[in-house]
Amino acid sequence: MAVFTNVSEVELSIWLREFSLGQLIEFQGIASGIENTNYFVTTSNGKFVLTLFEKLTERELPFYLNLMAHLARHGIPCPAPVANREDRYLGRIKSKPACIVSRLAGQSQMQPEVRHCATVGAMLGQMHIAGISFTEKMQNPRGEEWRTATASQVKQFLTSEEANILDNEIAFQASQRQNELPQGIIHADLFRDNVLFDGERIGGLIDFYFACSDALLYDVAITVNDWCVDGNGKLNHEKTQALLHAYDAVRPLEKNEQKMWLPTLRKAALRFWLSRLYDLHKPRDGELVHAHNPDQFKTILLHHIGSSEAIWL
Amino acid sequence: MAVFTNVSEVELSIWLREFSLGQLIEFQGIASGIENTNYFVTTSNGKFVLTLFEKLTERELPFYLNLMAHLARHGIPCPAPVANREDRYLGRIKSKPACIVSRLAGQSQMQPEVRHCATVGAMLGQMHIAGISFTEKMQNPRGEEWRTATASQVKQFLTSEEANILDNEIAFQASQRQNELPQGIIHADLFRDNVLFDGERIGGLIDFYFACSDALLYDVAITVNDWCVDGNGKLNHEKTQALLHAYDAVRPLEKNEQKMWLPTLRKAALRFWLSRLYDLHKPRDGELVHAHNPDQFKTILLHHIGSSEAIWL
Repeated sequence: MAVFTNVSEVELSIWLREFSLGQLIEFQGIASGIENTNYFVTTSNGKFVLTLFEKLTERELPFYLNLMAHLARHGIPCPAPVANREDRYLGRIKSKPACIVSRLAGQSQMQPEVRHCATVGAMLGQMHIAGISFTEKMQNPRGEEWRTATASQVKQFLTSEEANILDNEIAFQASQRQNELPQGIIHADLFRDNVLFDGERIGGLIDFYFACSDALLYDVAITVNDWCVDGNGKLNHEKTQALLHAYDAVRPLEKNEQKMWLPTLRKAALRFWLSRLYDLHKPRDGELVHAHNPDQFKTILLHHIGSSEAIWL
Repeated sequence: MAVFTNVSEVELSIWLREFSLGQLIEFQGIASGIENTNYFVTTSNGKFVLTLFEKLTERELPFYLNLMAHLARHGIPCPAPVANREDRYLGRIKSKPACIVSRLAGQSQMQPEVRHCATVGAMLGQMHIAGISFTEKMQNPRGEEWRTATASQVKQFLTSEEANILDNEIAFQASQRQNELPQGIIHADLFRDNVLFDGERIGGLIDFYFACSDALLYDVAITVNDWCVDGNGKLNHEKTQALLHAYDAVRPLEKNEQKMWLPTLRKAALRFWLSRLYDLHKPRDGELVHAHNPDQFKTILLHHIGSSEAIWL
């Protein structure tokens, strides 16, 4: 939405002296940031993105930066943080925690075809495999506790029918044993705008700041709910199967994952219905304008609830 | 010169399953390898280079691979080794130690202008700075001991005048105290063919398999002896100054480095005169055809010996 903290050319040039990135050639603020301030930065060594963290703290950030570094060195096309002369990814600029990462090629594909869904499914599987050897952990900050707390804050803005759906779904999810599913590092927000297509291939997975340790299937469900949904909020059969098949070819899905697929799709829809309700009704300063419509995920959730059987392999 | 070990599509596809690099799209042997077998490899995740090590051993390789990984994550454009599912860079294929690294953009600039020399000088300085936080060490395998041993093996092929020059230079170098110079990680072979220019910027530094711990100034001298020499074997004043100034702007050169500059240029010329004499007169199987002419470095050495003063900042 905005550059929240302005960085001057002089400030950036001085900051870059802590790195081995050569001379600053040009830089430009990126308007689309919602939680952080981002700049495109070109130096004599190449193209990078500077991020100033407006909310995440120096205590929280190493997990995300180390994860991106880990995935990048496993060949996953994700932003690779650059280490400074003290061999650290995390620095400070304008009193904000800051890092500089490699800039990736490509554009978001907002009208994905079946083949894009397959490509994303395969890449998600690879990311999950590459994440196995990452040893740091991060509890999902959008887990059960968050769901319950958020539901109680937004319920006042809902119709009684909606409140009823929400209560029932929270209770339903609490009854599910998702921790018996294969666990690992998940992106947890692999929506279309966080995947850059460079022609037919994926040039970049971006925005890892919701990544955490959780059920791998939950990541698949979050991705399917965004990539494979038609305008009416129903899963597209062909797209869903393409994504699942491509994922399964990389990380074979297990029997108990099939059993939990529909509940997991519901949980993924619930998570974004809740966060969008929260962002709409409890906006933080300056955030009103870019709140997404929560009804989209209510519709997706209702379709899942009404399904007798989930689309599977 | 050749692909020494052939890898089939099936063998490569199976090997790639140890990585998170996606599907093999195409691959092609690289004819220019002298010590290793190299293939260009394209997967759904991007472009890479596969190297099978024909001489270096699994004991020696981690230093080089860890160094490239270190420099890459500091933003130096060098090949970044890709880690496999066991989080290791080094694997085996066809019973040879092997790794896969990112493929860099650009072409060698074999007729460098003054501005190319400056660009290389700045990048060399950045590489030296980025190397400070690399904690592994590797003694220079082309150090004093190697010089003495190699000289005694090649002397029989020299004229008495040449043998005399060689003896004198070996004795001269033994009298120099180069370990008092600033030490660090050096590339030790940053010739024009090991630097890829992507337009006006450097897209890649390659071939780190002579890298070691030594005097940083020695690396500058090796580079100057290749990049800044005119056809007659004399240093070009403008190119040498451009390279030194650009380097100095990144890592300020010290007083004692100025004092040791001419001896260090001589040492760098001696090292390549010796190795080229050795490669010419003691070729290993199949290596005769690509031996470089040693006389080029004899000429450069003689020019340095005959200089009363070295070109400096």
